[in-house]
Amino acid sequence: MTKTPLILVTNDDGITAPGIRMLISIMQEFGTVVVVAPDSPQSATGHAITINNTLFINKITDENATVQEYSCSGTPVDCVKLAVNEILKRKPDLCVSGINHGSNSSINVIYSGTMSAAVEAGIEGIPAIGFSLLDYNWNADFKAVKKFVRQIISEVLTNGLPEGVILNVNFPKKQANEIKGIKVCRQAKAYWMEKFDKRQTPQGRDYYWLTGEFVNQDQGEDTDEWALANDYVSVVPVQFDMTAHHFVQKLNTYNFNKK
Amino acid sequence: MTKTPLILVTNDDGITAPGIRMLISIMQEFGTVVVVAPDSPQSATGHAITINNTLFINKITDENATVQEYSCSGTPVDCVKLAVNEILKRKPDLCVSGINHGSNSSINVIYSGTMSAAVEAGIEGIPAIGFSLLDYNWNADFKAVKKFVRQIISEVLTNGLPEGVILNVNFPKKQANEIKGIKVCRQAKAYWMEKFDKRQTPQGRDYYWLTGEFVNQDQGEDTDEWALANDYVSVVPVQFDMTAHHFVQKLNTYNFNKK
Repeated sequence: MTKTPLILVTNDDGITAPGIRMLISIMQEFGTVVVVAPDSPQSATGHAITINNTLFINKITDENATVQEYSCSGTPVDCVKLAVNEILKRKPDLCVSGINHGSNSSINVIYSGTMSAAVEAGIEGIPAIGFSLLDYNWNADFKAVKKFVRQIISEVLTNGLPEGVILNVNFPKKQANEIKGIKVCRQAKAYWMEKFDKRQTPQGRDYYWLTGEFVNQDQGEDTDEWALANDYVSVVPVQFDMTAHHFVQKLNTYNFNKK
Repeated sequence: MTKTPLILVTNDDGITAPGIRMLISIMQEFGTVVVVAPDSPQSATGHAITINNTLFINKITDENATVQEYSCSGTPVDCVKLAVNEILKRKPDLCVSGINHGSNSSINVIYSGTMSAAVEAGIEGIPAIGFSLLDYNWNADFKAVKKFVRQIISEVLTNGLPEGVILNVNFPKKQANEIKGIKVCRQAKAYWMEKFDKRQTPQGRDYYWLTGEFVNQDQGEDTDEWALANDYVSVVPVQFDMTAHHFVQKLNTYNFNKK
């Protein structure tokens, strides 16, 4: 790539989160960075888009800033759509999302605003990567992951990604010298066993907080959960064709058109 | 199945939408129906869940009603989680979502609250089907689709669905006698070309409405878009492993672990 890459940075924890600040600082080593991120936390908003409400954009930086930054009132997916259509002058060469405060491995990919932003970029034909650290703490230590982010970005800028493939990168909560390396994986078959925390309002009305326990019954050593549990960085290639191709033939034997 | 099936009905247009009222009336022919649906429109909320806010459930019907109905303050996915964990006495035999006012074919599956509710049921191990009619009108005519809903439900209750497979059913906007039958399909490779409608508040601040144009460049005659354009009901089996399995081997040739 001879011209300077144009890199869109977004996330779901909001534009002030330490995770995105770290990602912005790393991405400046690789190209021209424009940030379009939610103005408030948007965790677990999945692939939601805003169609029943208005969207606002706030330009945060002045024209002379090295990095142009915009906050947006919508979801992470809205941010990508607004960036591509209203803010950026050309299609970015790369979109990175994160670094998320908390895991987006296995089934979390489907609930994750961070990954949905990356997937939306993929739908729009932009190479995209979502990064997440297995630490929900706002003051999580992102230093250990810097060199791995650099390695992944560098390889993706060199080799590209095929159309419709997005990377889901998760980092174990470990010091740099404890991390064994980067492993390409598949999404583990895992799920959340919900537990609702039932409480009462001061007026006596029941309400609920969604909580849960993560259950991984997938024993495969080729999964992201295995990699993370064994101190590797997991990289899962993700796509957005949700067709269960393995079941098309069998489903054709169902007698849907009986007279 | 010897015992009466327990059927969970949900949607994303909200519990008062004509589409879900039609679905409820059809499902009563097949088993015991419990409705847990959003108390307000939740279109395009994707797989969002509510973790930064409280959830409320309202019991709408009295104990003697034939169909027990609950509205919920959360997203369609929240409704399924609350139904399974807090409302239903046992795991339902089937979850149906819809009938959505508007298409959920091709890439819409990923934005759709209707389909995300069905997918969530699938994640929880419940056979699930999402139904959508290609008519966004609140007063859309759902009569034509009744017999097709019955055929699909009947086959699924007879044959079941494998774990992790959900059906995405879309109906063309046609009269019953114009619909040629039911076709098993794959998700078409299509996308939305966004157009933001930029306006100004009375105070002079810019804001945006998300709109767009649907672009289908997939010429395959095995796609849901082809089926719908040719007056068939489309049935796409959907799964939630987002791994791009075809790219795992190639991604392993990337030099992520260079020294």
